Amino acid sequence: MNSKKIILTGDRPTGPLHLGHYVGSLANRVTLQDTYKQYILIADLQALTDNYEHPEKVRSNVLEVMLDYLAVGIDPKKSTIFIQSMIPQLSELTMYYMNLVTVARVGRNPTVKTEILQKGFGESVPLGFFVYPVSQAADITIVKGNIVPVGADQLPMIEQTNEIVRAFNRTYNCNVLVECEAVIPKVARLPGIDGKAKMSKSLGNAIYLSDPADVVAKKVMSMYTDANHLKVSDPGQVEGNTVFAYLDVFDPNHAEVAALKEHYQRGGLGDVTLKKRLIEVLESFLKPIRDRRNEFAKDPQYAMKLLLEGTALTEHVASQTLNEVKEVMHLVYKG
Amino acid sequence: MNSKKIILTGDRPTGPLHLGHYVGSLANRVTLQDTYKQYILIADLQALTDNYEHPEKVRSNVLEVMLDYLAVGIDPKKSTIFIQSMIPQLSELTMYYMNLVTVARVGRNPTVKTEILQKGFGESVPLGFFVYPVSQAADITIVKGNIVPVGADQLPMIEQTNEIVRAFNRTYNCNVLVECEAVIPKVARLPGIDGKAKMSKSLGNAIYLSDPADVVAKKVMSMYTDANHLKVSDPGQVEGNTVFAYLDVFDPNHAEVAALKEHYQRGGLGDVTLKKRLIEVLESFLKPIRDRRNEFAKDPQYAMKLLLEGTALTEHVASQTLNEVKEVMHLVYKG
Repeated sequence: MNSKKIILTGDRPTGPLHLGHYVGSLANRVTLQDTYKQYILIADLQALTDNYEHPEKVRSNVLEVMLDYLAVGIDPKKSTIFIQSMIPQLSELTMYYMNLVTVARVGRNPTVKTEILQKGFGESVPLGFFVYPVSQAADITIVKGNIVPVGADQLPMIEQTNEIVRAFNRTYNCNVLVECEAVIPKVARLPGIDGKAKMSKSLGNAIYLSDPADVVAKKVMSMYTDANHLKVSDPGQVEGNTVFAYLDVFDPNHAEVAALKEHYQRGGLGDVTLKKRLIEVLESFLKPIRDRRNEFAKDPQYAMKLLLEGTALTEHVASQTLNEVKEVMHLVYKG
Repeated sequence: MNSKKIILTGDRPTGPLHLGHYVGSLANRVTLQDTYKQYILIADLQALTDNYEHPEKVRSNVLEVMLDYLAVGIDPKKSTIFIQSMIPQLSELTMYYMNLVTVARVGRNPTVKTEILQKGFGESVPLGFFVYPVSQAADITIVKGNIVPVGADQLPMIEQTNEIVRAFNRTYNCNVLVECEAVIPKVARLPGIDGKAKMSKSLGNAIYLSDPADVVAKKVMSMYTDANHLKVSDPGQVEGNTVFAYLDVFDPNHAEVAALKEHYQRGGLGDVTLKKRLIEVLESFLKPIRDRRNEFAKDPQYAMKLLLEGTALTEHVASQTLNEVKEVMHLVYKG
């Protein structure tokens, strides 16, 4: 019997994964897969809610994301990776849950409000996007997830999920659904190469796990450091210096990094020297990832096979949960 | 090859069907099943959107509605009768369509607005109810329905469906979905037994197809006639007289009804005499229906079997449509 706690996590397949994803979630997943039953969702349906005009983009990124997973060491033998759109039970569950949530309640969800502004929908919010908190509740509850690692901005989504769980169990007088717990992983914040707080594809400030060595080098050379550090001899600032932020995360030699910081602050350490070190550090981190990725990329059918296997396992669990749900909703018809 | 035009019609299983249903749609379906490919949906999912707290009510009425269908002569060999919740493809299609409709657009749908008021949801409109125009578009398009018989109040729903069809075909550059046509059947309006314009379960003014003879007689005896027709010798009014409205619809002897109207208007014809005639007329109409219904009701498993067979046929068609939809949305994953 499997009494491990269940984690539900995942990504929207809208682009390749980058160092920010690695630091923020992928590294964590590699660790957690040994002690938890971990489901990883490639959320193609959710990606379509604001990319419905570009389904081919979403589609091609499903495989890219899978390759990124395999490259960083997420092991399909330990983690169950699945494609959202291939689990029809998720759509069915979403339909049932929608009866338990009011339009006004979703409209008040702070995450939904913020994202509607960020995405510039104006008055034209697609219904599919609007209902995504409910769809997310289906994602979590269909595998009876206990733990959902999220960023702080996603806490209202977990609250919404648990509201639905309670409403469902109360309405149908059962304990079929399980409340989940949001866990905000304690991770270093990795700024974009432009020094902006967040690394993101849309900001164009990301280093991807799949970037070749020369691209990484070029990105590091363009990194934001200290706008007032003009000559090598000038004292430089460490706070807000992107290169040091990256060294803090990726350079295993903390003592040397501490010494470099001191040197930089008193002057005489040039940005180029520093960046060359970071290039080396990142390369020794990224090379094995890139090599594994290239290896898997040679046989995309194999990666897809692993993905379909995880999806089949998930569908088995999903259909069990849906049966329990339909049972208490008097929706099981027999001949 | 089947080149018959396709009809999609159906009922919400929230109560047994009554004479108003017969006159307004059931009679029409019995006729149409010979010349069209007719799908009849028992909309349990839709019924749940405003009955989610009473799933057992919805559930038990699925069989009642099926018995009513069989009783009036809807023939499962000619019409494909199916249970909505057993077609998971409907939920999937609804999820895809929701990306193509804005929250504001559904909010402006006149039918939705009216029903929100009628049902007294106030500020607490369940999301499931709000999105039902999209779910209805899935019902119609999943069987590629060409014709949808509706009341005039439902025209905005058909408009919404065709908007979705056009948006889908345009967005995914295909002609997978088919626009449908609303057909408003030319039928007599049957008032409730209280003389109100509409016969309805919630108004408590209905004669059910399954009512025993004595219940029908009692309901007819309580019918609204002419409030000023106090003595038999008084001249009475035919306009707005419920008994005459029913005789117009159900009495095959039009000449005699015309003579009765004249007699009633000039005085000397009592309500009781008139009502006794209607009781006879309704009984000769309802008896064969009631007998067939009782026959089928003896073996509810057989009725359920017919329903599950129709559902299996529909799922076959639904899965074909969904495959075509997923193909153009780049959502078909192969190993």
